[in-house]
Amino acid sequence: MNIVAFEKMKTFSSEKMKKINLFNTDRMFCDLYCFEPDQFQKVHAHEGEDKVYTVLEGEGYFQVGEEVETVQAGASILAPAGFPHGVTNNSGKQLVVLVFMAPKPQH
Amino acid sequence: MNIVAFEKMKTFSSEKMKKINLFNTDRMFCDLYCFEPDQFQKVHAHEGEDKVYTVLEGEGYFQVGEEVETVQAGASILAPAGFPHGVTNNSGKQLVVLVFMAPKPQH
Repeated sequence: MNIVAFEKMKTFSSEKMKKINLFNTDRMFCDLYCFEPDQFQKVHAHEGEDKVYTVLEGEGYFQVGEEVETVQAGASILAPAGFPHGVTNNSGKQLVVLVFMAPKPQH
Repeated sequence: MNIVAFEKMKTFSSEKMKKINLFNTDRMFCDLYCFEPDQFQKVHAHEGEDKVYTVLEGEGYFQVGEEVETVQAGASILAPAGFPHGVTNNSGKQLVVLVFMAPKPQH
């Protein structure tokens, strides 16, 4: 069975936020993002893919479209296709985010 | 911004496992499943959709294909399209699972 114990796979880098792939199918992928304080995922957009961020640990400053919000563990954020989105960890603590994206980008 | 504080949306029913929809787009959906002890999601399959279960709280007994495993909080399980899959909460405690499915079923 394809089980990933993501709690044991958290990995941080002093260089930049770390992306760890959990699953990758023809239809979607699932990643774990680990941010040290002051690390970020720059604002970007996917024309045809929806992304869901789920904050597992810590808190992050999320942008989707023109909106920005501080979101804490226990909440998910939808970044619909075409909407610019990004995350900054300005919390002073480590931030761990589960990410789902569908469909899988073709590029 | 479309943010859902799923930690505050956990709802249990004495009747059967509770499904709470978090997001629903043209490309995917995301649900929260809340199980009291001895509740279950019966084994079923989706021909064209991949599902990811993420155990947030408690532990469950997961089946994918012919395999069964007890999985605890902090792990995700992939149920690929076409594979029979289901969950039973035989842990004696409440079980909370985040579910992501893509693409969105058309039926």
